[in-house]
Amino acid sequence: MEDRFEISLLLDFYGNLLTPKQKTIMELYYNEDLSLGEIAEINDTSRQAIHDLTKRCYKLLLNYEEKLSLLSKYNIREEKYKIALEDIKDRFKLSDEAINYINKLFEDINNS
Amino acid sequence: MEDRFEISLLLDFYGNLLTPKQKTIMELYYNEDLSLGEIAEINDTSRQAIHDLTKRCYKLLLNYEEKLSLLSKYNIREEKYKIALEDIKDRFKLSDEAINYINKLFEDINNS
Repeated sequence: MEDRFEISLLLDFYGNLLTPKQKTIMELYYNEDLSLGEIAEINDTSRQAIHDLTKRCYKLLLNYEEKLSLLSKYNIREEKYKIALEDIKDRFKLSDEAINYINKLFEDINNS
Repeated sequence: MEDRFEISLLLDFYGNLLTPKQKTIMELYYNEDLSLGEIAEINDTSRQAIHDLTKRCYKLLLNYEEKLSLLSKYNIREEKYKIALEDIKDRFKLSDEAINYINKLFEDINNS
């Protein structure tokens, strides 16, 4: 069973490795939530052709993730951030204000 | 002019997108510092074939970096870390011990 949210994240990480046309169609389907029929109409092709393209691209994205693990590394960093924040807070008795401030910096950096 | 250190970093990021044979040869040349002749001998092929392969793979690596920018994003995160640390230090009057501790956490996370 496909996880649309996961595919949307994989598109963020690896979309540029698809062709521009593939990327656009995947974004319309997984981010903009257009139906296969609607996308087929826009591209002047059949619903089946769009369906096949999304399946093929999904496999490409999974293949890139298998090789580069960008999504799983991102998730690991997020998890480590949370643990690190708790650790810093306890260890140096930081105020909530300081923790919130550091948290925002962490988030900003991880999303760079 | 090629920057061997840069290519070595690109190999860290994108090596898994090369074929196993390409990756091995690139690592022997750029990380292990073997000569083209030595690598040719190991692979029972000509020096020219290895030379061509390294040129081709270098272009592939540059192409991946152009599309995914993993190396440049890594460098941006490193830069932001440094600025953030100075900022946290000034803003919350943290001790050197605390700053060193947070710095280690940052580094650990960025290399995840």
